[in-house]
Amino acid sequence: MRRSFASDNNAPIAPEILQAIVDANAGDAVGYGEDDWTARAIETFKTHFGQQTEVYLTFNGTGANVAALSSLLQPWETVLTPATAHLQTDECGALERFSGSKVMPIATGDGKLRPGDIRPYLHAGHDVHFPQPRAISISQATELGDVYELDELRELCAFAHERGLILHVDGARIANAAVALGATLRQTTTDCGVDVLSFGGTKNGLMLGEAICFFNPQLHAGAAPFVQKQSMQLASKMRYLSAQLEALLTDDRWSRYAAHANAMAQRLYERVKSLRGVRITRPVRCNAVFATLTRAAIERIQREFFFYVFDEALPEVRWMTHWATTELDVEEFALCVERALNVSA
Amino acid sequence: MRRSFASDNNAPIAPEILQAIVDANAGDAVGYGEDDWTARAIETFKTHFGQQTEVYLTFNGTGANVAALSSLLQPWETVLTPATAHLQTDECGALERFSGSKVMPIATGDGKLRPGDIRPYLHAGHDVHFPQPRAISISQATELGDVYELDELRELCAFAHERGLILHVDGARIANAAVALGATLRQTTTDCGVDVLSFGGTKNGLMLGEAICFFNPQLHAGAAPFVQKQSMQLASKMRYLSAQLEALLTDDRWSRYAAHANAMAQRLYERVKSLRGVRITRPVRCNAVFATLTRAAIERIQREFFFYVFDEALPEVRWMTHWATTELDVEEFALCVERALNVSA
Amino acid sequence: MRRSFASDNNAPIAPEILQAIVDANAGDAVGYGEDDWTARAIETFKTHFGQQTEVYLTFNGTGANVAALSSLLQPWETVLTPATAHLQTDECGALERFSGSKVMPIATGDGKLRPGDIRPYLHAGHDVHFPQPRAISISQATELGDVYELDELRELCAFAHERGLILHVDGARIANAAVALGATLRQTTTDCGVDVLSFGGTKNGLMLGEAICFFNPQLHAGAAPFVQKQSMQLASKMRYLSAQLEALLTDDRWSRYAAHANAMAQRLYERVKSLRGVRITRPVRCNAVFATLTRAAIERIQREFFFYVFDEALPEVRWMTHWATTELDVEEFALCVERALNVSA
Amino acid sequence: MRRSFASDNNAPIAPEILQAIVDANAGDAVGYGEDDWTARAIETFKTHFGQQTEVYLTFNGTGANVAALSSLLQPWETVLTPATAHLQTDECGALERFSGSKVMPIATGDGKLRPGDIRPYLHAGHDVHFPQPRAISISQATELGDVYELDELRELCAFAHERGLILHVDGARIANAAVALGATLRQTTTDCGVDVLSFGGTKNGLMLGEAICFFNPQLHAGAAPFVQKQSMQLASKMRYLSAQLEALLTDDRWSRYAAHANAMAQRLYERVKSLRGVRITRPVRCNAVFATLTRAAIERIQREFFFYVFDEALPEVRWMTHWATTELDVEEFALCVERALNVSA
Repeated sequence: MRRSFASDNNAPIAPEILQAIVDANAGDAVGYGEDDWTARAIETFKTHFGQQTEVYLTFNGTGANVAALSSLLQPWETVLTPATAHLQTDECGALERFSGSKVMPIATGDGKLRPGDIRPYLHAGHDVHFPQPRAISISQATELGDVYELDELRELCAFAHERGLILHVDGARIANAAVALGATLRQTTTDCGVDVLSFGGTKNGLMLGEAICFFNPQLHAGAAPFVQKQSMQLASKMRYLSAQLEALLTDDRWSRYAAHANAMAQRLYERVKSLRGVRITRPVRCNAVFATLTRAAIERIQREFFFYVFDEALPEVRWMTHWATTELDVEEFALCVERALNVSA
Repeated sequence: MRRSFASDNNAPIAPEILQAIVDANAGDAVGYGEDDWTARAIETFKTHFGQQTEVYLTFNGTGANVAALSSLLQPWETVLTPATAHLQTDECGALERFSGSKVMPIATGDGKLRPGDIRPYLHAGHDVHFPQPRAISISQATELGDVYELDELRELCAFAHERGLILHVDGARIANAAVALGATLRQTTTDCGVDVLSFGGTKNGLMLGEAICFFNPQLHAGAAPFVQKQSMQLASKMRYLSAQLEALLTDDRWSRYAAHANAMAQRLYERVKSLRGVRITRPVRCNAVFATLTRAAIERIQREFFFYVFDEALPEVRWMTHWATTELDVEEFALCVERALNVSA
Repeated sequence: MRRSFASDNNAPIAPEILQAIVDANAGDAVGYGEDDWTARAIETFKTHFGQQTEVYLTFNGTGANVAALSSLLQPWETVLTPATAHLQTDECGALERFSGSKVMPIATGDGKLRPGDIRPYLHAGHDVHFPQPRAISISQATELGDVYELDELRELCAFAHERGLILHVDGARIANAAVALGATLRQTTTDCGVDVLSFGGTKNGLMLGEAICFFNPQLHAGAAPFVQKQSMQLASKMRYLSAQLEALLTDDRWSRYAAHANAMAQRLYERVKSLRGVRITRPVRCNAVFATLTRAAIERIQREFFFYVFDEALPEVRWMTHWATTELDVEEFALCVERALNVSA
Repeated sequence: MRRSFASDNNAPIAPEILQAIVDANAGDAVGYGEDDWTARAIETFKTHFGQQTEVYLTFNGTGANVAALSSLLQPWETVLTPATAHLQTDECGALERFSGSKVMPIATGDGKLRPGDIRPYLHAGHDVHFPQPRAISISQATELGDVYELDELRELCAFAHERGLILHVDGARIANAAVALGATLRQTTTDCGVDVLSFGGTKNGLMLGEAICFFNPQLHAGAAPFVQKQSMQLASKMRYLSAQLEALLTDDRWSRYAAHANAMAQRLYERVKSLRGVRITRPVRCNAVFATLTRAAIERIQREFFFYVFDEALPEVRWMTHWATTELDVEEFALCVERALNVSA
């Protein structure tokens, strides 16, 4: 295919992860997580996030978000989230259908939710008419390629906890965020007060596999294993998800892959930021570059590379890099952009 | 681990399938099924089942059953199924929660549903009080290791269609059934009048991957792609599911794996059927042997091999074989059974 | 219309109840239950059932059953109920759709559930695959016109509680049952160990109005008021439901109306039981008579009176009486039956 | 109680409506809408709205909105509505829980949705990730006491239909709106292109009762009767809802009651608009007056009259009138406001 700057889920499996799958293919193993690989993977998660962590694997990111929140919310409780959240825009209403809970989208300037954005949505008392706010869900990294700083996260967690709310992080790109912050996974999550994390593997080199990490397991009150099953996320041959996640969390692979993806985006940004006809529209902190350019130029570039127009109205494009993007890919892509701009000009 | 005669989902990935994963790991690919592997897999399904077939991949069997039926049933419509169906007993109520539809379990003597079993559940007219029967779901092979004969299937499909009902087959072990019947996949399904099939891959040598096959796509009226997504079953890196399924459906692998599994069950059956203290309780048509023996004997065997007690009350055990079960495994297992019986006696 | 022996919900409003509506029509009142009539109605329920009782009014019986059980069950938990239960056969799958919980119908000979019927549906442990039994729901009076004796109720409650299960009573006709048992409402419910009751008003002389009575309110853990609202059962002008229910529970109206209805059924039974061509098929304990007679006879009677054929296959009819059925109605009906039988014979 | 300026649902039943209930209390009637009163009520709706209209009665407004939209939307389809809509803020997420569909709240300046507000929420194509817009729901009168002009309605309907969207009107106060517009019910709805209406009775003098009016019945494709039942909105003794609605739609009662309520709000507005310390915050078109005044003044008035603070932050109050509000009530309320302001000043 044309090379892709469309999404980190267009990437192949990282060789070390693929090797972990191959290595796991050794004889029989009990299904549904009662295997050694899963036990080791869970142990590895605990090493990273703290011994109190409870881990439930899921097939994909939508499954992780929906199963995490469904374990925590009653159907009359709501989750407050930026209007740009994957949960709101890209999961086809899976949470509403599966759990019945209302998702409350909040408009933000830059895709980052701050206490001041949330306050108007909190009602005092327990009037039964209004759906009850119960959780805040943010994406880290954000859907717009940015990150919450650690003190922003701490502030948001404190704000939530003071009001009896749960703080959920959609961490489809948590590794990219941690790398951008120069922090460990634990510093980026539990140490800030995050209650529950959808840990992303698929966008960071895995074939597939995500993990819900409950840092305060009592919050789900025993619901999580049933929700994992009932949400159709319980893998029978779970060892193959577990082996990948264990490998990712071993030998700093999670940060190496993410650091590379981030660096490639930075490189692309440096290459195109001064091009006449390109306007970079968002901070480049992780593995995405957002930019506006002419429709004609976009179409030319898309003949050679695959990527999405993020906002048709402007138009604004999103260019994403991943663990396997090479410097050569970036250079060729940048050259292609230059050519397209020159022709269009 | 102890070798497993517990379930065909305890098996590893068949080497040819694993190779297909490795081969698919070639550069970027568009996500969510817009890739070449998925196109080829779908083409392969059509070759087997007919050009009119529409295919939607899912992660697991519960996902396949729930997404298939949710694409076809309104929430006030019901699916009639044997009380022993996986849908009824092993999916944690996923269909009810996701689609709202009632599952109507029907008691059967042997796990096979026949027109006479169904008739009392069909009400004339369209009274709004009673949940409306809309589909019949059967497992082929059955949950008890048996198969519906082709004329039984034809009769059931005709019975359904005459009453405006849809015939769904949970084919987690459709390959084992087809092999047992000496029939092609198409003869076992579309040719009998089956409307929709949950085609099983995981239990027949895959790492993971199932496929919903609609043989009358107009029945879902455009719902299926949205249901696939909303039920959290749409894989982003779908090529890795597709590559496995394509490989399984190529070079008769599906039937070779299933034939081997069936043969190993037959071999086990031959080895233990005459042992004093063992009573074989069900026909051995596919890859399962059901038997009663003493609790003491069961416990002894379980020290060396992993398997489930299917019915604690009797107790009745289920011994399953799979693509990777060897003749030596069977022999050692049989010897172990013999020893356990001798000690217990 | 033709006079009805079809259902107690074909009856008009009892004059004393209608007067209570008229009396409640006095000026403004705060909505959603914050009014004096509702406060008094709740107090009256407590007088009958005990001070620990928590009461939530609903519009209809399906609403009461669904809101009661949805307050108590997680979506992966099931309710065990006779296959003949209103919940199973006449609520169009409302519980499944609203709460996601599976309803587990259990075949019974006579519509009464006994511990032995339930036992095979209880699984040890907390395996996530199998929907988890959490509640037992029975109808008192039963859907077949019979009643559970007090010791049967006590046994069933004890059986449930020993296994951590909740005992719910669909009491659409609880008054008829209490009268048949010669017991108070409290003796028929709380004193036997019932945990939650759908108290029926509509079938006992009201325009509309039912009440969920939680005798162990901690079981719903605060869910009930939200469920009442979210299930669309929270009346804005609630005083008019409350006034009716208060009136029903005052001056023994509940038992007078039910006793009259029961007596009329008994009278009808005595009149027709010896008629050649009529076979009474069920015990006549409350306000229903079940009988088989020829199709020709049924059609003749239906020209003059309205009633339902309960089981088309036999055919078996259900004749119901209510608070307003007169001795003359019964006599004319019985004469009509006689005539129909003579003509048919 | 203190007299209420809190809500039109604090009003009693209008005497003519109560008489209709009394008149309907005549002997037996078949349940679930198969009675003469319901037939006549439906005929009356058709007279007002057109012969093509299909009518389904519900108990309350939340039931009407949820059953109407659930009959029209697939679970992966969304309804776009003002962020202030009752559907979004006051129904406890009932639609999400019952139907699974996402509600998409749109911020508006004044509670009125216009094409320009909606456009950003419409996506081209049928990408499965994004919940698919399928309906627009507006309140007429709006939740802020205003009305859509007829040409605004026509524009919105045309905008919707050009895009394949359904236009739903939450008409809890449709009568107040029609009166404010000097239009008939038909001119206010079908003639503008409205597809489906939740017709409000409870807030316009009824004890309880609303009606879903489908003006293009083919849109629900047969779903509506099942949804009415499954959403627990099907009254067994339906004649008593029907009789009220028939009475309301006869002899111009619907418009007389609404005109009176509107006039009382206008009268209150005239009385208080010039008071020092009161600021009227919204147009007074129907039966609500919104105003800001000091917290101290609010508290003083609330000692004598019951009403709600609509927006605690400002604070802004909502004063509502209804069919039974008298000129004397308004005068005494206005005097009370004056006194409170004088004391506070």
